[in-house]
Amino acid sequence: MSDERIGLTVHGMSVSGNCHKVRLLLEQLGTRYRWVEVDSAHGQTHAPEFLALNPNAKVPVVVRDDGRVLPESNAILFWLAEGTPFLSSDGWERAQTLRWMFFEQYSHEPYVAVARFICGWTGADSPRRAELPRLRERSAAALAVMEQHLGHARWFSGAAYGIADIALFAYTDVAGDGGVSLQPYPAVVAWLQRVRSQPGFVAMPEVTAEVRARFDQAS
Amino acid sequence: MSDERIGLTVHGMSVSGNCHKVRLLLEQLGTRYRWVEVDSAHGQTHAPEFLALNPNAKVPVVVRDDGRVLPESNAILFWLAEGTPFLSSDGWERAQTLRWMFFEQYSHEPYVAVARFICGWTGADSPRRAELPRLRERSAAALAVMEQHLGHARWFSGAAYGIADIALFAYTDVAGDGGVSLQPYPAVVAWLQRVRSQPGFVAMPEVTAEVRARFDQAS
Repeated sequence: MSDERIGLTVHGMSVSGNCHKVRLLLEQLGTRYRWVEVDSAHGQTHAPEFLALNPNAKVPVVVRDDGRVLPESNAILFWLAEGTPFLSSDGWERAQTLRWMFFEQYSHEPYVAVARFICGWTGADSPRRAELPRLRERSAAALAVMEQHLGHARWFSGAAYGIADIALFAYTDVAGDGGVSLQPYPAVVAWLQRVRSQPGFVAMPEVTAEVRARFDQAS
Repeated sequence: MSDERIGLTVHGMSVSGNCHKVRLLLEQLGTRYRWVEVDSAHGQTHAPEFLALNPNAKVPVVVRDDGRVLPESNAILFWLAEGTPFLSSDGWERAQTLRWMFFEQYSHEPYVAVARFICGWTGADSPRRAELPRLRERSAAALAVMEQHLGHARWFSGAAYGIADIALFAYTDVAGDGGVSLQPYPAVVAWLQRVRSQPGFVAMPEVTAEVRARFDQAS
C-alpha cells in the first residue's frame, strides 16, 4: 500500500466473499483497519449514505481517513498488495495476476457467488431459484478452468501465494453453499487447503442459522 | 509494456468490444502486432487449438513470440500500458483505473455487450431475446454510474485519457446496437467524443450487413 500511516475503514458484509477477500489480505498484511458492517443482502447498499460512497451500490468499499474512496474488491486487493509479497513486481506476473482476477469477476463470481446468494438469501419459493441449474453449470466450467491451471501450478499469482489466490479463494471455498460440488476438482480442493495453511489466514465468519438452514435445504 | 522488442499476436474478433480495446491501445501506442481473426460468435473459441491458448474459451488473447500467453482484455491493457502515458505510475490513480476496469467487466459489459450480442448474432426467434429488457435496464444503471462520475471528471483514468477510458469506451460506443439509448447521458456522449478525438484513435470495424440489419430490426 502506498502509505501505511493512512487509516482505513472497510465497509462490507462479513459473509460476502468479495468483502472477505479484503479482510483476509488486511489480516495477512497485519494492517490495522476498521470494519463497518453493511447488510447488502437486505438493501443497505442502496441507502443514500452508502450510494454517496459508491454509486454502483456494491460492497466492499474502502474509505481512507483523508476521505478518499475505493470500491471494487479486486482493485482494493491490488492497491493494498502493492510493494508487498502478495503482488509480484514483475510486469508479466502482475499481468497474470490480473488475468485471474478478471477471470474471477467475469467467469466465476457471477455464477458461484450468485448461486450461493440465491440459496441462502432468497426464499424457497423465489423465482430466482430457476436460475440455479445454469449458474451451477457455469460454476463447473469456471472450476474446470481452475483445475486445469492447478494441474501445473501451485498458485494463481505466479510463483507465490498472492492476491489472485485470495480473489479466487473467497467464493470457491464456500461454493458448496450454492450447491456447487468441488468433488470433481481435486487440484482445486488441494489448493484451497494450501490457502488455508498460509500465515495469518482467517476464515469467513459463519452465516446466521437461518441462512445456514437455507443452504442445507438447497443443496 | 515490459519489452518492446517482443513481437505480439492478438487473437480476436474485430467487431468485439473486448478485442477492439486491445487494437485501440496498440494503435495508440504505435506498437507493431499481428492480428488473427477468431469468429467467437460462431464457436471458434471452442476449437481445440484455441482452447490450448485459453481454456476459458474467450477472446482476446495475446501471444508473445516467446510463446507466452495472456487472456482477459483488461489484463492485456494493463500490461501493454505499463510505463506509458496510458497508465499512471501513482498507486492511488492505478487503483482507480482498476476500479473502473473491474466495474466495466462486472457491471457494464455483461449487460451492454450481451444485449448487443443477442441483437446482432441471434435470430429474431431466439429465446435469448427475452433477456433484453433486463439487460437494457442493467445497462442503464451502469451508464448512470458513468454519467455521475463524468459530471465532475473528464476521464476515468485519473487526470488523463488512459486504459480505463479505453475499456469503458469499447462497448459504450456501440451500446445503441443492443437497443441501449445514450440519450439520457449527455456527459457520457461528450466523453465518447473526447475519446474519439484522441491521437491515433481507430474506430471498431463495421459489422457485416447481415448483423447490421439485425441491429436495425432490434432497436
